[in-house]
Amino acid sequence: MHAEPPEHVGIDLAERSYEILIGARIFDAPHSYAGLGNGGAAVVVTNTTVAPLLAERLLTALRTQYPRVLLVTLPDGEEHKTWPTLNLIFDALLQAGCDRATTLFALGGGVIGDLTGFAAACFMRGVAFVQVPTTLLAQVDSSVGGKTAVNHPLGKNMIGVFHQPLRVVVDLDVLDTLPEREFNAGLAEVIKYGPIADAAFLGWIEANLPALCARDKPALRHAVKRSCQIKTAIVAQDEREADLRAVLNFGHTFGHAIENGLGYGRWLHGEAVGCGMVMAADLSARLGLIDAGYAKRIRDIVQRAGLPVVGPRLGTPRYLELMRVDKKARAGEIRFVVIEAPGRAGVRGAPDALVAQVIEAHTA
Amino acid sequence: MHAEPPEHVGIDLAERSYEILIGARIFDAPHSYAGLGNGGAAVVVTNTTVAPLLAERLLTALRTQYPRVLLVTLPDGEEHKTWPTLNLIFDALLQAGCDRATTLFALGGGVIGDLTGFAAACFMRGVAFVQVPTTLLAQVDSSVGGKTAVNHPLGKNMIGVFHQPLRVVVDLDVLDTLPEREFNAGLAEVIKYGPIADAAFLGWIEANLPALCARDKPALRHAVKRSCQIKTAIVAQDEREADLRAVLNFGHTFGHAIENGLGYGRWLHGEAVGCGMVMAADLSARLGLIDAGYAKRIRDIVQRAGLPVVGPRLGTPRYLELMRVDKKARAGEIRFVVIEAPGRAGVRGAPDALVAQVIEAHTA
Repeated sequence: MHAEPPEHVGIDLAERSYEILIGARIFDAPHSYAGLGNGGAAVVVTNTTVAPLLAERLLTALRTQYPRVLLVTLPDGEEHKTWPTLNLIFDALLQAGCDRATTLFALGGGVIGDLTGFAAACFMRGVAFVQVPTTLLAQVDSSVGGKTAVNHPLGKNMIGVFHQPLRVVVDLDVLDTLPEREFNAGLAEVIKYGPIADAAFLGWIEANLPALCARDKPALRHAVKRSCQIKTAIVAQDEREADLRAVLNFGHTFGHAIENGLGYGRWLHGEAVGCGMVMAADLSARLGLIDAGYAKRIRDIVQRAGLPVVGPRLGTPRYLELMRVDKKARAGEIRFVVIEAPGRAGVRGAPDALVAQVIEAHTA
Repeated sequence: MHAEPPEHVGIDLAERSYEILIGARIFDAPHSYAGLGNGGAAVVVTNTTVAPLLAERLLTALRTQYPRVLLVTLPDGEEHKTWPTLNLIFDALLQAGCDRATTLFALGGGVIGDLTGFAAACFMRGVAFVQVPTTLLAQVDSSVGGKTAVNHPLGKNMIGVFHQPLRVVVDLDVLDTLPEREFNAGLAEVIKYGPIADAAFLGWIEANLPALCARDKPALRHAVKRSCQIKTAIVAQDEREADLRAVLNFGHTFGHAIENGLGYGRWLHGEAVGCGMVMAADLSARLGLIDAGYAKRIRDIVQRAGLPVVGPRLGTPRYLELMRVDKKARAGEIRFVVIEAPGRAGVRGAPDALVAQVIEAHTA
């Protein structure tokens, strides 16, 4: 049996344009990285969980394309998405005498991608980087679009820059070893694209959720490709999140409050986003934008994907306080991504009393 | 007597274009900041030395243009150009509930400008900032062009990004209180523009050095304006230092080795650059690019500006080691900005033996 050729999804950002390759057994295929090198070293940044599974295979592929290949292994987990961890990358690059021709490779999930992208943006004021996402969440969301960041004790992703990768290499086979909890967390970001941008895609997800949960390759290929297409179309229109791009944060305002309120790492990001979407959909219904049935439909899909639909009881004032430091906030007013109609989202404020009803209805 | 209207020097960087205003008594004039606000807070970042002299005057001017004005005062000195200091800015912004509509104002010298610019680039993935340089060095060099950075134990300015200011407000009157040593350090960067870009300007500096050292306003106005014109012309052609812009680092390869070898803060940056230009000019002569007389002329001007022309005796191997981590290095080869002809510079490698001769001739 021959492997199908990888899908190519392009993102049009003028001189920062790049391609997303989506396929099977491609992350360790040398031709996935052809034409990228510029004479400098390739530095693979990964974590202690991914390194023993995948690092050597990527290093072997890169040795055919780069004169020098290095590995930097970071501790695993959202709680390490901080400046001191970022500095471990800088230490390694400088100790190895890396120069501006260096290319970094982010081999891991969203945390590794955000850290590596931020390091690439800042090392000697900017070097190239390639995303090799190994979680479903990173494949359908965080590896595409150039957002990089570290967390601050007062807020998630508060410190970062936009820095686009040179290429994104999405290998569906690496998902086979992903723990179920992490896989399901990634489904939250797949589900997200339906309500915000493509009503028919939500129907497809609804029908194909059993195949997706079984990690059926054709189903996954379609879900990842469609997710990347929607994301790239939105990012191409608003690279630096002046406006439109914020709709990609559906569920994230409530979700960040959950993550931050519990302490980073207790819930996975995708779990918090899944529950956050349930809350944001309910808020949209309470604002009269969609009917309660559509909100319930989103809740059911999130639940069938094995994700939590009831948030932790942090207390309403604490939720509100945590949401006020969200990056979308303006002049102290919390702003939410809401569903304005099936397949269409917008950003707006909402009365605290209504938000409090939502919190009380969906936490326990 | 009416004050002369400020000079305007524009820098053409497409949607990142901005203006440099150069004049007397303009840093605390509200109209210097007209048209910049976008509804968010103005946050002045300065240091413990500048704050008591100038901060309240700037805050008063900004109160007429911004709904909320905050002050962040950092410790003074190159040794504080580090991530922990940067984080003090992030802490203050987040504790004050600042959002993406915030504008930062860098009130100080090169260290404050680099820290504030980097903070603006990274806070919530990028907010606006305005440079209000209070040292001659910052006025003629570091406040223009969008380079931001912090130091790393293994090298100066290794971690940073390009982030252009919204405006640069250069007030010549604030130089009146600048200590002589700092003023002279700024002259090094003025002198630099002659050999690299404008042979006639070097002649003008040579003739007007006594007036400059006496801080004569018309002489300063011309020197600052011409320096900014040369810098903006070069940056407009090569914003991200792919190539041409590197000539602005004339004297900086040797200079960074001096600063780093002694420990940041022992010599002022401009002092190290002054001495570094003497060494780089001599290297240019030894490479046969210019005659020894031109190198001596540069040395004499640096010396007349009250700057050191003899470097510390770190030992030749240590100099070479320190220069190998310079950002211009490629594949382990140190690259120097050399004078190719009076008023024209280039970047090239040089044999270690020749570099060693230069080090031995100019250190004691």
